[in-house]
Amino acid sequence: MEPTQAAAQLRQDIRKGIHRGPTSGLAPGYVQCNIAILPRDWAGDFLRFCQANPRPCPVVAVAANPGDPCLPPLGDIDIRSDVPRYRVFRDGELVDEPEDIHALWRDDLVTFALGCSFSFEEALLADGLEIRNISEGVNVPMYRTNLPCQPAGPFRGNMVVSMRPFPAAQAIRAIQICTRFPAVHGAPVHLGDPAEIGIQDLARPDFGDAVSLRPGELPVFWACGVTPQVALEQARPPLAITHSPGHMLVTDLRNSQMAVL
Amino acid sequence: MEPTQAAAQLRQDIRKGIHRGPTSGLAPGYVQCNIAILPRDWAGDFLRFCQANPRPCPVVAVAANPGDPCLPPLGDIDIRSDVPRYRVFRDGELVDEPEDIHALWRDDLVTFALGCSFSFEEALLADGLEIRNISEGVNVPMYRTNLPCQPAGPFRGNMVVSMRPFPAAQAIRAIQICTRFPAVHGAPVHLGDPAEIGIQDLARPDFGDAVSLRPGELPVFWACGVTPQVALEQARPPLAITHSPGHMLVTDLRNSQMAVL
Repeated sequence: MEPTQAAAQLRQDIRKGIHRGPTSGLAPGYVQCNIAILPRDWAGDFLRFCQANPRPCPVVAVAANPGDPCLPPLGDIDIRSDVPRYRVFRDGELVDEPEDIHALWRDDLVTFALGCSFSFEEALLADGLEIRNISEGVNVPMYRTNLPCQPAGPFRGNMVVSMRPFPAAQAIRAIQICTRFPAVHGAPVHLGDPAEIGIQDLARPDFGDAVSLRPGELPVFWACGVTPQVALEQARPPLAITHSPGHMLVTDLRNSQMAVL
Repeated sequence: MEPTQAAAQLRQDIRKGIHRGPTSGLAPGYVQCNIAILPRDWAGDFLRFCQANPRPCPVVAVAANPGDPCLPPLGDIDIRSDVPRYRVFRDGELVDEPEDIHALWRDDLVTFALGCSFSFEEALLADGLEIRNISEGVNVPMYRTNLPCQPAGPFRGNMVVSMRPFPAAQAIRAIQICTRFPAVHGAPVHLGDPAEIGIQDLARPDFGDAVSLRPGELPVFWACGVTPQVALEQARPPLAITHSPGHMLVTDLRNSQMAVL
């Protein structure tokens, strides 16, 4: 694969501290990833959790060894500096949001990169669909559901979903398009009545912002990358580091390479 | 392709008049087709109508020449005897339901074979989905919609759809499965609120029988092979011959061969 100028340049700017904001809409065409970093003793169970729950936790890459800050399949990456903003959790509690984690790095830390909805949103936009959270300029609304994840060791919890409204024919088209992208959450997990999956009020999301739902539109729900963060909070490892929401790892992979078809 | 024993044997029984009933559930695994037969002067417009409206009118085969009763791509077929029961329309009016059309055959008749929902129903059943009209032992409910077909010459009209209810997660799975089968109606055209496509009362289908809709289920609507029959009635050709509903042409094609993936 040739060097990927836009993504590599943005990542360099992030590494140097020139760019420290959200990455939504930047380096279009390139895969951005959710990040989770855990001590080796917790990494095995977390990987089992992801593999048992691939819709909310699609693993794109895992560092080859504990203490290795590189992810060669995703580009020239140093995970200690290449995310614009991190979140640090100790015993499940958020304690800091640094822009660099060199000072926290240890020889036993294992890095996970998980797929992100930005990839399939780009495919939906390219097909002419309107994505309400983008056209309304807000974060996608996310909701806790009553859909249980398969537990693995201390990692457990219900699935979190994101919601995007579409007229029925576009919902069907969105299902077709997203089915091609299992590594970035894949097809929706639900559509229609929110109460069926334990959501009481679409106007009050648990994360992100509410969006308008117009007459004739169906709410369509995708498994969401916040799910593993909720599982991390439940498991309460002594140390866990993630990206800060919206501040993703920008990779050299193209979104089209995530398509299985 | 090897001879296909079950389908070929059933078609022989139909040709000899041994089997004269519906074909639903018979010769499982093999494609069954809707049939339309028209005079040459009307056949061009009808083919244009089908090609402009591939969801309701997916053309599987057309006879090579006017007057030719064979359809070699579909097996050793004589269309004058190989459908268990026909419908004969003169000037758009149903005038007869014979079991053989040798007496009506003319040198200018052109035969069309169109895909049928039996193929995708088999794929849904194979995936473990319940198909309500099958489990309730009735014909699938069909409804006239307000979705206009693209007209072609005298052929015009709104789309007719069939409806099968599913819980949301199964509706999503059904969309994925049926997307693989564009030659047999493909993905649904609508789901959710029937009024969005002009259906006032699901309990009163325009064709076929009502089925029960359970709490938490969405009605899912597919483009239906009755659409071309409605267009034929609108166009009022001096002569048109179709299969009688449920009495299909059994072919040597396997349903799996209809899958594009």
